[in-house]
Amino acid sequence: MADGPFREQIKRLVERLEGGVAAVMMGFDGITLDSYVQPREAAATAQHGAGALPDILTMAMEFAHLIAQARRTLQSLDAGTLEEFTLRTDTITLAVRVLTPEYFLACAVLPEGSLGKARYLMRVAAPALRVEL
Amino acid sequence: MADGPFREQIKRLVERLEGGVAAVMMGFDGITLDSYVQPREAAATAQHGAGALPDILTMAMEFAHLIAQARRTLQSLDAGTLEEFTLRTDTITLAVRVLTPEYFLACAVLPEGSLGKARYLMRVAAPALRVEL
Repeated sequence: MADGPFREQIKRLVERLEGGVAAVMMGFDGITLDSYVQPREAAATAQHGAGALPDILTMAMEFAHLIAQARRTLQSLDAGTLEEFTLRTDTITLAVRVLTPEYFLACAVLPEGSLGKARYLMRVAAPALRVEL
Repeated sequence: MADGPFREQIKRLVERLEGGVAAVMMGFDGITLDSYVQPREAAATAQHGAGALPDILTMAMEFAHLIAQARRTLQSLDAGTLEEFTLRTDTITLAVRVLTPEYFLACAVLPEGSLGKARYLMRVAAPALRVEL
């Protein structure tokens, strides 16, 4: 994929995160605007094959659908506008920040990384990313 | 609802959280085992009517379904076992901790409350709750 306008910013985000694996800017329709995967992670996946780490793009795409559903549920419950969404498994942490009604930023971190720091860096990065949308 | 075996523990959890609104122990089938709502929140909802705060039980029930779906998605992606799930809107934060394959603990916190502290208290409370299941 060619470098998009978001590449430098999301790359910096992943690099500043201990255990940062990848980040992606995506539409709720599942279409990727831009993504960045840490080279060491890409290498590990290539070496150990699929299953070493889940593919962040596939994961984000699957969850784009689920998050869109969560937004509709929240709306029907009058529970406000979705801003942030995280999930944590024994192998990966996924943090999502909604940027606009159409787009979100997702970030994958290893379990030993800090979810709090990921949430903080994404919140701080959001305004500059939003300008480009 | 009569006091269940979890009432004291989830009550303590909510009370220790600044901005803690309510907590619920629920099955992924949407059936409530036990719940606790802060009296001041219950009073505010009664006074201002529906819409003051979304009903945590309804919210948890709706998300039980969504979380079950997320678990299946994670499984199909080989992305590990779901342990934690959070979402944050402009009016409420919902934190969910999976206790067993059948049950989860959900906790609602006001936006000014700390999601980090909610996650921590839920992690610490989990082993004792799991024993009773």
